[in-house]
Amino acid sequence: MTVVSSANFRSFTDESAEVEQSKVLIKEGGVQLLLTIVDTPGFGDAVDNSNCWQPIIDHIDSKFEDYLNSESRVNRRQMPDSRIHCCLYFIAPSGHGLKPLDIEFMKRLHEKVNVIPLIAKADTLTPEECQQFKKQIMREIQEHKIKIYEFPETDDEEENRLVKKIKDKLPLAVVGSNTIIEVNSKRVRGRQYPWGVAEVENSDHCDFTILRDMLIRTHMQDLKDVTNNVHYENYRSRKLAAVTYNGVDNNKAKGQLSTNMDTVEGIFSWNWPVGESGVNPAASF
Amino acid sequence: MTVVSSANFRSFTDESAEVEQSKVLIKEGGVQLLLTIVDTPGFGDAVDNSNCWQPIIDHIDSKFEDYLNSESRVNRRQMPDSRIHCCLYFIAPSGHGLKPLDIEFMKRLHEKVNVIPLIAKADTLTPEECQQFKKQIMREIQEHKIKIYEFPETDDEEENRLVKKIKDKLPLAVVGSNTIIEVNSKRVRGRQYPWGVAEVENSDHCDFTILRDMLIRTHMQDLKDVTNNVHYENYRSRKLAAVTYNGVDNNKAKGQLSTNMDTVEGIFSWNWPVGESGVNPAASF
Repeated sequence: MTVVSSANFRSFTDESAEVEQSKVLIKEGGVQLLLTIVDTPGFGDAVDNSNCWQPIIDHIDSKFEDYLNSESRVNRRQMPDSRIHCCLYFIAPSGHGLKPLDIEFMKRLHEKVNVIPLIAKADTLTPEECQQFKKQIMREIQEHKIKIYEFPETDDEEENRLVKKIKDKLPLAVVGSNTIIEVNSKRVRGRQYPWGVAEVENSDHCDFTILRDMLIRTHMQDLKDVTNNVHYENYRSRKLAAVTYNGVDNNKAKGQLSTNMDTVEGIFSWNWPVGESGVNPAASF
Repeated sequence: MTVVSSANFRSFTDESAEVEQSKVLIKEGGVQLLLTIVDTPGFGDAVDNSNCWQPIIDHIDSKFEDYLNSESRVNRRQMPDSRIHCCLYFIAPSGHGLKPLDIEFMKRLHEKVNVIPLIAKADTLTPEECQQFKKQIMREIQEHKIKIYEFPETDDEEENRLVKKIKDKLPLAVVGSNTIIEVNSKRVRGRQYPWGVAEVENSDHCDFTILRDMLIRTHMQDLKDVTNNVHYENYRSRKLAAVTYNGVDNNKAKGQLSTNMDTVEGIFSWNWPVGESGVNPAASF
């Protein structure tokens, strides 16, 4: 699985945002998940951010292109899937609403990838402010007709309850930490402030656990399905239509496509190393 | 006194930053201080932020212009001083360093106004992160030759100790709040998080009290002096030089000046309503 995130993990540069890939192998109960995270350091930090989304669009398209090429091969048994299954878009915790760049970015992304909006550094918002901010963001997302990832409704009542619980919390407010702290003789991942410890995995403090469970447990398969059935099919049909219509080769068609499409970036793709057992790990999460 | 701040108090718009003035009358021990705060809502929020500093430059210049005009009048007794004495520049608590826009803005400001860099929403940085972030920012300010407000050295040893204490804490990390909360049966201004209360006026939590005392007590007079003797004199001599050199009228010269000058914005000007006692309140703080 590959995730594109708009979080800025590294120091800022004057250059426009580039993408940076890193892979993590998650093991749980004998099941392995290779998670690929595509970061976009420096995104939105320039004075002029026009077209700062282009490297991300290009990255998403290139993964679709790779997949299309491997689909056309004679031997399709070992087809790696490095398509982007999800884009985590981090919104600054301003407390005001979306910035023009947020709107522009998500609108250019939403027909290419599953966009999941998040509130970054949520430990700077009090619960009341956070609640207000979430409402404001969802209102603006609707107003601007931004199509974020739609959590599927099912016939299962319990599942619907879970989906409703997630939907009510959108955009998920998250806090990150790479430090383990001892709180009441329990070791937790958190941020140690002079006034207390903000715990990443405490649902009273932020929505991180909801995000994690949704991404790698409850909705991973749906993110993959939507990517394959909607976003990839859109890419494929437009690409092939261009080839047929213009009667030109793939490369030429690609050039034309990239100027015609008004869609966008952000990334999340799932790489599945099938374990020794040969079982599809998705089923076990 | 008038302060320009780059904090975004209001909701974002697609328009470039404009300035908004508000006045507060502070009373303390019979002394009145009329503080004018010039906010720049939406600063830096557009997709393309080129020249987003222009409205602030224009505002600073217009206040210098007003002062220059009233200096030229026959009756100079009632000369209102609405010049900008200080610019509080808020840096986002990214933990990484300055963004290109921060550098560009401060470089365009520093020869027009006393720039004081601040870290906004500092309650999202742990003490260690804050320390690191401060060092990184000061390093970059030096590297890029940004001239922030220079705290004056004096012959008084105690005063020098105070100045050293402030300098060591630059850029000051601040937290804001308009809520009063009860903590250990004491009413404090703070932010109530599920993990504790970040107190605005607790020096273990942030540098707000240092900023307040510096602005309206210890360094107010110096901010006014530097504005008058350095920034205003620069403006005045350039302005008069242009008139003399070009032999044109003020208005025309103004148009030429504003395209030639590569300086900047941010605001802080002191309005002194002289009390009934006729004493200059500055002396009493």
